[in-house]
Amino acid sequence: MNAGSDTAKPARQEKVLPISGFPEYLPAERIVEQRFLDVIRDTFELHGFSSIETRSIEPIDRLSAQGEDADKEIYAVSRLAAGDSGDNDTRWGLHFDMTVPFARYVLENAGKLDFPFRRYQIQKAWRGERPQEGRYREFTQADIDVVDVGELSAHFEAEMPLVVADVFSRFPVGDFVIQVNNRKIPDGVYRAIGLDVSVGVIETLRIVDKLDKIGPDKVRVMLLEAGATGAQASTALSLAEIRTTDLSFVEQVRALGVSHPVLDEGLDSLADVIRAGMEHAPGRIVADLRIARGLDYYTGTVYETQLLGHESWGSFCSGGRYDALASDGRTTYPGVGISIGVSRILGLLIGKGLVTASRSTPAAVLIALNADEDRPRSTTVAATLRRRGIPCEIAPTAAKFGKQIRYAARRGIPYVWFPGGDHETGGDAVKDIRSGDQTAAEAMTWTCPADDLRPAVTRAP
Amino acid sequence: MNAGSDTAKPARQEKVLPISGFPEYLPAERIVEQRFLDVIRDTFELHGFSSIETRSIEPIDRLSAQGEDADKEIYAVSRLAAGDSGDNDTRWGLHFDMTVPFARYVLENAGKLDFPFRRYQIQKAWRGERPQEGRYREFTQADIDVVDVGELSAHFEAEMPLVVADVFSRFPVGDFVIQVNNRKIPDGVYRAIGLDVSVGVIETLRIVDKLDKIGPDKVRVMLLEAGATGAQASTALSLAEIRTTDLSFVEQVRALGVSHPVLDEGLDSLADVIRAGMEHAPGRIVADLRIARGLDYYTGTVYETQLLGHESWGSFCSGGRYDALASDGRTTYPGVGISIGVSRILGLLIGKGLVTASRSTPAAVLIALNADEDRPRSTTVAATLRRRGIPCEIAPTAAKFGKQIRYAARRGIPYVWFPGGDHETGGDAVKDIRSGDQTAAEAMTWTCPADDLRPAVTRAP
Repeated sequence: MNAGSDTAKPARQEKVLPISGFPEYLPAERIVEQRFLDVIRDTFELHGFSSIETRSIEPIDRLSAQGEDADKEIYAVSRLAAGDSGDNDTRWGLHFDMTVPFARYVLENAGKLDFPFRRYQIQKAWRGERPQEGRYREFTQADIDVVDVGELSAHFEAEMPLVVADVFSRFPVGDFVIQVNNRKIPDGVYRAIGLDVSVGVIETLRIVDKLDKIGPDKVRVMLLEAGATGAQASTALSLAEIRTTDLSFVEQVRALGVSHPVLDEGLDSLADVIRAGMEHAPGRIVADLRIARGLDYYTGTVYETQLLGHESWGSFCSGGRYDALASDGRTTYPGVGISIGVSRILGLLIGKGLVTASRSTPAAVLIALNADEDRPRSTTVAATLRRRGIPCEIAPTAAKFGKQIRYAARRGIPYVWFPGGDHETGGDAVKDIRSGDQTAAEAMTWTCPADDLRPAVTRAP
Repeated sequence: MNAGSDTAKPARQEKVLPISGFPEYLPAERIVEQRFLDVIRDTFELHGFSSIETRSIEPIDRLSAQGEDADKEIYAVSRLAAGDSGDNDTRWGLHFDMTVPFARYVLENAGKLDFPFRRYQIQKAWRGERPQEGRYREFTQADIDVVDVGELSAHFEAEMPLVVADVFSRFPVGDFVIQVNNRKIPDGVYRAIGLDVSVGVIETLRIVDKLDKIGPDKVRVMLLEAGATGAQASTALSLAEIRTTDLSFVEQVRALGVSHPVLDEGLDSLADVIRAGMEHAPGRIVADLRIARGLDYYTGTVYETQLLGHESWGSFCSGGRYDALASDGRTTYPGVGISIGVSRILGLLIGKGLVTASRSTPAAVLIALNADEDRPRSTTVAATLRRRGIPCEIAPTAAKFGKQIRYAARRGIPYVWFPGGDHETGGDAVKDIRSGDQTAAEAMTWTCPADDLRPAVTRAP
């Protein structure tokens, strides 16, 4: 992969240089990416999510309204030859996530959609932030959301991480864990002990969210400086350190000795998520009460995901519930969703060579060419194999067979087909160039193992 | 589909409006688009083309260097908060096709690619031109190209239209015809009769290219005004009117009574293309000697494609051979390629309701819910079906069964699954809600016809 360097200079007409933060893959790497995207799509569809794609641009005022530092990250788009069509008074920007466009799509098409609306969206997005390892300016995200009108049932919050666990169990990402919290738990606890008055709920969350970065001692100091008592700070810190793979987090929270109706709601809801996880994705979904995420808009369950052994890369897949994903002033659309950072994961897996493809082309077979005037014969073999779903290509020239075999080997194509190559029968022959085994074959009936039909995408040992 | 209107005004925070030329699909329409893209990708891969994706932006000076009016069509991209990372002295634009980025990709990665390099690329592109029926500002193209180092064998020119014919025979686009010419044929004829001196080859091509728009009489007048003799104009017009589905175009050209070595080359090459078409895509590939296309860069075979009955929409799929797809000054990379205008075709097929999907969701089965506390049971059924590749979703609420069935019907989901719904055995039951037939079923073994597993995408009668 070429993710560009930070010092890339503008390319001139003759020069070609990568652009920092705009990665591109070589063909074999792209096969890894395609396989991952295929698994994601197939899993989303098995779970009954409908695909949509939204346009790449949104009005800048709509983009800017989301998130604190949105402006800094937006790429503005304008016609180079402005002024001749009257539409340059509008300012457009490239979307920086799927959520803003999806919310707009829901409002725009509300009358034509069936609610609850389960949609997935796999698209590129753009952010003008400084590129760094695993963070790109152009990147692909794969989102699922369920959105409803007015009210959204809580059970959808338990469903999201199961879909993600299904995706990651079908692609060789290695060990992963989906961390789940419910914002009502810290909210209820903070209210029960008066932190909502002394520091404020959002401010407390903001400080506790620094736990991984600065450690508990500095968090305690910050909480005290913000107005918390020592007891309040201790309870907030104890809460944040609870992490269980089963329902025992409920007891541990109860052991803090506080109670509040909002806390009860949060515990019930998180217990439902963890219970579903224990049943359908054992070991993959944990209650982790320090997860906060998107302080401004999430109101219930929140999700993060870590690849074990690569925790420093941060969360690869995050999301949560919003009480107002979209609103047109009259109707409110609550939603819950989760987003897989496809480019972020692949930047790690491909960039570090952890996952590789067995070849650089979809072709499973190279049809050899006996002589240039024999091309129609090879083309007929190829057409027959293709009709039977076997990807193949024909040798570009009637070079010596050794050279044709090397052509296949260089690309990782496992089989070479020789029209008329079986000397006993005069029929065709096919050679597995990995083993050297050659057998008689007919294009109408020959099959190869399913594992050879598509490139193998595997985790490096 | 909502392709926007020409009078769309900027959306404010509360308002949501389409943007002219940036179409978006509803879920059932998107299923049609996905199916078409799946057929394209699968066919390209069966023919052994490797996928690549390039970044969405290129330096504007690279984009501007291509084509006459390129500048007018380019969308410039810049960071909204400029100046803080030092990269805003570079001017980027969104790519307007796949050819410019592919040429740059080849130069950038030449040392890591195997030549001849067969690649496909299915991506969005952007052009700031005035939107009109079938022409969008954001659109998807699906390209194949073969590029080689120094020399490119002619047989690849015969291969391109066969791939396209395979695509279009697998998707219900209706009747189509791929029109092929070879630029060496008019080139040779014009030279043989002196039009290269009196008018010039490119200028003659430019005038003859107007034949469909202004008719032969006006073309004749223009040729005479440009300096042609009456005999020269007659020959050029006669040549342009030759169109055959077999090899008889060769005789018809010979009957013009002219000869030139370049003409011979062109006739041989076009004969190879048509011969391959007669063999592998009978009736789909015609020799049409008025096709010119991309006067500046194509040097051999050129392609256009028409949907019969929709000729006024123009070519949906075009391309040709370039002697210099890319060059770094030392090495030249000749190529041949063809590009399917995915958005253009779908704008017609979906926009006019010619092709539709049988449902708006991938789910083939809705798992009914007996009671809210019974959700885990329904979730287990769903997980079992999904492991077996059957897309499904669970009813959102334990409403009356009639309402749950209507939920499925509204989305076109053909089956509703009732856990414990078989009254004789106490086991599960499944109802085909189109016929009303209900039978006992087990999630571990039940199957539905393959046609129901995925949404049907069919041509409207």
